[in-house]
Amino acid sequence: MTKAPHRRGADRTEAIMRTTLELGQEIGYARLSMEGVAARAGAGKQTIYRRWSSKGALLLDSLLSLHEPALDYPDTGDVVADLRTQIHAAVDLLAGPPFGPLFTALIGEAQYDPRVAAALNERLIAPQAAKTVERLQAARDRGQLSEAFDLDLAMAILSGPLYFQLLITQEPLTHAYVDRVLDALFTGLGPISRAAGR
Amino acid sequence: MTKAPHRRGADRTEAIMRTTLELGQEIGYARLSMEGVAARAGAGKQTIYRRWSSKGALLLDSLLSLHEPALDYPDTGDVVADLRTQIHAAVDLLAGPPFGPLFTALIGEAQYDPRVAAALNERLIAPQAAKTVERLQAARDRGQLSEAFDLDLAMAILSGPLYFQLLITQEPLTHAYVDRVLDALFTGLGPISRAAGR
Repeated sequence: MTKAPHRRGADRTEAIMRTTLELGQEIGYARLSMEGVAARAGAGKQTIYRRWSSKGALLLDSLLSLHEPALDYPDTGDVVADLRTQIHAAVDLLAGPPFGPLFTALIGEAQYDPRVAAALNERLIAPQAAKTVERLQAARDRGQLSEAFDLDLAMAILSGPLYFQLLITQEPLTHAYVDRVLDALFTGLGPISRAAGR
Repeated sequence: MTKAPHRRGADRTEAIMRTTLELGQEIGYARLSMEGVAARAGAGKQTIYRRWSSKGALLLDSLLSLHEPALDYPDTGDVVADLRTQIHAAVDLLAGPPFGPLFTALIGEAQYDPRVAAALNERLIAPQAAKTVERLQAARDRGQLSEAFDLDLAMAILSGPLYFQLLITQEPLTHAYVDRVLDALFTGLGPISRAAGR
């Protein structure tokens, strides 16, 4: 099993994804190709196409599969602290170098290619939304959230301001920004919050 | 002044922008070109390049200049109603056909072209953020908003969930969704809101 030029199974899958990230970082998303990844990884082009339908799908899997644990929520009992911990980790992963430029390029591609948009939602957004609702549901059951808050919107409300910064203003997505957003979302726009003397 | 083949000044500018939208709707953003617009509008290519540095800048101006009044906030004294009115109008303009596909394509382009990103922020985001803060400041002065809410985040908090729906999940951006987002943002995530019995 040593020095096999064409590695097998999970090992080969991981090598292909690692190569995708390396090459993507070197030459950028626009110039990245399935052929280029195959050549660099020493894999057959068909091997790659059998598993991934497009370079968008390949890049998304590559970005996520090697780092999925960073997207899990802890549950220490303090929902604000746990959201902060998870979102800081997600920001470090998705917005920071070296992944940031590839990730935003992928979202750019999703505006043109419905398959990339579908893969993005299936592989990242939907699972993340489910985890977010689950963590917030646990907090609401403990009286740590407003009972009136629409949990189905949690993903849009929590991550929307981050994507806005990442994709629209394109200013740096920092931990400090995340903290300000969390504060603002927990405070709410409504005057009701003043009752608690915050 | 009748039937001039090359129209002058504001009239010509408007004709170029109108042609940009017509042609963009017909052939899509990817195939749209400054040359194509020039030919269809009966304008010199240099005339267009003098005013717009890229097709992204031209398209953004075209999308906005013909419809800017839709982006103003009313002030009836009821901040929630006024936000709803303005955001419904913005959603009708920016997410609905025929502008939606061109607008999202433009944001896609902004992930690759810093000039498009800069134009997007200068022409749309920054002015809209200033209007948003101004309207919310007036509401806060009247005690209609939480004093603790971070007004500088208003644009990100209010429009982030809309861009999330538009660019990421790509589900329909409806008035009903806007209303749910506004409710959730005014409620806030925090348990404090329960004090008011909502």
